[in-house]
Amino acid sequence: MFAAESMVRTLINQGVELCFTNPGTSEMHMVAALDRVEGMKSVLCLFEGVATGAADGYGRMAQKPACTLLHLGPGLANGLANLHNARRAFSPVLNIVGDHARAHRPLDAPLTSDIEALAAPMSRWVGTVGEPSEVSAMAVQAVRAAYGPERGVASLILPADCAWSDDEPDVLPRETMPGLMPVDEAVIAAAATALGEARNPVIYVGGNACLEDGLEAAGRLSQHLNCRLIMETFAPRIARGAGRIAPQRLSYLGEQAMEELKDCDVLLVAGSRPPVSFFAYPGKPSELAPKDARVVHLGGPADDLAPALAALADAMGAPAAPDLAPRSHAPAIDKPDEPLNPGYVGLSLLRHMPEESILCDDATTSGFGVYPWLENGPRHDWLFLTGGAIGMGMPLAAGAALACPGRQVFALCGDGAAAYTLQALWTQARERQNIINVVFANHSYLVLNFELARVGAGNPGPAAQAMLSLDNPRMDWVALSEGFGVPAVRAATVGAFDAALQDALKAGGPHTIVAEI
Amino acid sequence: MFAAESMVRTLINQGVELCFTNPGTSEMHMVAALDRVEGMKSVLCLFEGVATGAADGYGRMAQKPACTLLHLGPGLANGLANLHNARRAFSPVLNIVGDHARAHRPLDAPLTSDIEALAAPMSRWVGTVGEPSEVSAMAVQAVRAAYGPERGVASLILPADCAWSDDEPDVLPRETMPGLMPVDEAVIAAAATALGEARNPVIYVGGNACLEDGLEAAGRLSQHLNCRLIMETFAPRIARGAGRIAPQRLSYLGEQAMEELKDCDVLLVAGSRPPVSFFAYPGKPSELAPKDARVVHLGGPADDLAPALAALADAMGAPAAPDLAPRSHAPAIDKPDEPLNPGYVGLSLLRHMPEESILCDDATTSGFGVYPWLENGPRHDWLFLTGGAIGMGMPLAAGAALACPGRQVFALCGDGAAAYTLQALWTQARERQNIINVVFANHSYLVLNFELARVGAGNPGPAAQAMLSLDNPRMDWVALSEGFGVPAVRAATVGAFDAALQDALKAGGPHTIVAEI
Repeated sequence: MFAAESMVRTLINQGVELCFTNPGTSEMHMVAALDRVEGMKSVLCLFEGVATGAADGYGRMAQKPACTLLHLGPGLANGLANLHNARRAFSPVLNIVGDHARAHRPLDAPLTSDIEALAAPMSRWVGTVGEPSEVSAMAVQAVRAAYGPERGVASLILPADCAWSDDEPDVLPRETMPGLMPVDEAVIAAAATALGEARNPVIYVGGNACLEDGLEAAGRLSQHLNCRLIMETFAPRIARGAGRIAPQRLSYLGEQAMEELKDCDVLLVAGSRPPVSFFAYPGKPSELAPKDARVVHLGGPADDLAPALAALADAMGAPAAPDLAPRSHAPAIDKPDEPLNPGYVGLSLLRHMPEESILCDDATTSGFGVYPWLENGPRHDWLFLTGGAIGMGMPLAAGAALACPGRQVFALCGDGAAAYTLQALWTQARERQNIINVVFANHSYLVLNFELARVGAGNPGPAAQAMLSLDNPRMDWVALSEGFGVPAVRAATVGAFDAALQDALKAGGPHTIVAEI
Repeated sequence: MFAAESMVRTLINQGVELCFTNPGTSEMHMVAALDRVEGMKSVLCLFEGVATGAADGYGRMAQKPACTLLHLGPGLANGLANLHNARRAFSPVLNIVGDHARAHRPLDAPLTSDIEALAAPMSRWVGTVGEPSEVSAMAVQAVRAAYGPERGVASLILPADCAWSDDEPDVLPRETMPGLMPVDEAVIAAAATALGEARNPVIYVGGNACLEDGLEAAGRLSQHLNCRLIMETFAPRIARGAGRIAPQRLSYLGEQAMEELKDCDVLLVAGSRPPVSFFAYPGKPSELAPKDARVVHLGGPADDLAPALAALADAMGAPAAPDLAPRSHAPAIDKPDEPLNPGYVGLSLLRHMPEESILCDDATTSGFGVYPWLENGPRHDWLFLTGGAIGMGMPLAAGAALACPGRQVFALCGDGAAAYTLQALWTQARERQNIINVVFANHSYLVLNFELARVGAGNPGPAAQAMLSLDNPRMDWVALSEGFGVPAVRAATVGAFDAALQDALKAGGPHTIVAEI
């Protein structure tokens, strides 16, 4: 048994059972270990951004970490953008990054780089194995860091000679991992007092407060106080559909968000932080809550907010169960030849989406059009682009499907975003996943057309227009998807999309529908 | 005029005339500036790794920097792997990375990250604009850093409010940029003495010593001394073809390289460092020159080695011109139905490749089969994968084509490597570049099959084999290429490849030939 094998066995003992891999020579003993040891499935990815995005999707749904296996600094670098999203989602992810053998490192061979420095900005924990005898203990430490209590990205750097050593370090047994922390009773009592004194409070939820139990408690509270329940714009995961509480989603545009919050005198923050605008704009404020509003923190990503919100609702005398909206009626398609738009995609999803679907939203502008339709539709989890690094949708879907094999997954992707990490389609095909990718083909970085105007940079001339347009040439998403092994169709009308969606659901496996909008 | 406009005008004054862009909201004033100002062409890329790889290709061929325009930390992160290659190529590249407005940064909005920390490992210079009044001066500083004297990657971080400010900072005039440094006469004299005393010296060249003049001087020297002339395995750029000196390429495999160097008593190093193996292997040394060989450094990447080598050749009494091999005879294809292999691709290139072609080699295993064929063929520049971060070929080709619009460019890519940055095809199509992409479809990470055995990790079982295979499903590279707008054909025989190459050359514009090997 070599050291990498001890490490893999130790990780399995901690409940880590999946590894998204893109290995190279320096990780060959990890490959061999994954081959020899039962209990950890390897999923090959063609690009590291797929591996890290998939690990994020798995972490958000499984609430426990999967591994990635990445090749030195450049391999990690390719995965950093989706690790940024994972970090912002407080998603548990464990990167295993191979490095050169310790004696080889100072020779500065071509693939040498400062891996710790690259990992640090996107990781809450970084460690480098110093001796083969440490591999198991450091693996446990890394898993612990991914669990939290604030969940996140842990990056373990493994020199090749520490992986190949036959020193036979111990395999460590299962250890108890940290969980979310209970919120102190005094904090809950203070929140109750503040809300009791408020004229116009807002309950502002995010993070783990957007899971089912947290929303139910927050709904009880807001209904009892007759106040608004607002969620952060890009929550990691929100439980939705008929029978669940649906918070209002804070607008992306700062001026609208300020309008939505303007009369608030007490902002109760649960699982997030007071809202700030996504970007800054000349002459506009970045902080969105009224300056004189009192901010009351119930807890952040490390805190277990569902029981805290329930205790708070109890303390304020809220009824035991909230009122819930009835299930949306799914309208028929009466004008099938109408041109497609994101709203109609939402309508078709409302009509056909299975219960307990998972939707991964990487459709910067189009997602906003789909989202409202499903509020009281089939129960589902909606996963947002937490860190703004586009190229998350298809990888996230691949990971979510591995976390929840029985559930239908959708990736909603803008065409600009999909072009970042389209290699995820290959992993979807290889693993025969029940994923329907909807590529919204507007042939532009549409959001940037708005943003160019909003930042006051003047009317775009031809060079600026060209930089925001994907029209020359148009990408053929049917060809691209099929090139990676995922069948695809194009839909330009309401009826064509509705039919394509039904066909894809009936056939099972991965599909791409190119929504021409 | 806003500050970004001053910066762009200043950059143009320094000779920077090209920007590979993938902007977002925080870079909209750079987009507007590029739109308003004449003299800097914007080239849109669908993924930042394409932008940085293209900037590397441009830098290697133009010997001056192009800009990239990248969106915050994640945008930079996506470009880091190809910046790693650029860094190892000593290629001048200037990244302009947008950041949030200064007041917005401490609010930790979703896209916030530590950009300086991300940039540092791959950059020789990192700077963040602190005040709008600094933009022009810092732009000059960044260009200066990219020029060297050791050329490399400079990363300039530009907060959005420093770009949009209308403080109107000065536009700075052209400044003299650093060039390569002359090698000290004493160093040349010492090298002459050492070589004079050597029984079995080796002239070991790399970096700028592999350009035409350096090789000619090194050839004079090695012919006069009747000693070996060996080049580093992955040089940034080597001038090749009939009428030029062809150094022996040091083997990739350490044991072969050690055999090649074994009798050497004096190693004269020009433009590189003493060779080390690419990876470490259990029980094998990483340093490849004999332990008792005397290493004599003529100069490194910052030094102007062609004149130094010429002076050294003169000092040792070498004739003024080296002997040169005659032009290779390009054999006919007598068995057109033979299955294709990389050697036959080399043969077809020898038959049809135009003079002054540029070849970008990202074909890990197949490139070795093509390379020898062209040694005395048409004159060309061959660009290697300097940093080992695959996914360089198609982007590098796009940049090289922009640096040298009159020259035919080839990207030689393994299918595993091509899958990293295939979005470069779209830029090739958009810019109507004369690039022929050869994708070697062996449907595996072939090199890793060798490496798994070489590291002694045992015989691969099914899980390990699956991790090194790209066979399930097979990528359809014709579909993928056409999906991004580049026409493509498949060739599985010697004759089919030869015909496809002729067709592509005749048609002009970008093409992909899928070489089934």
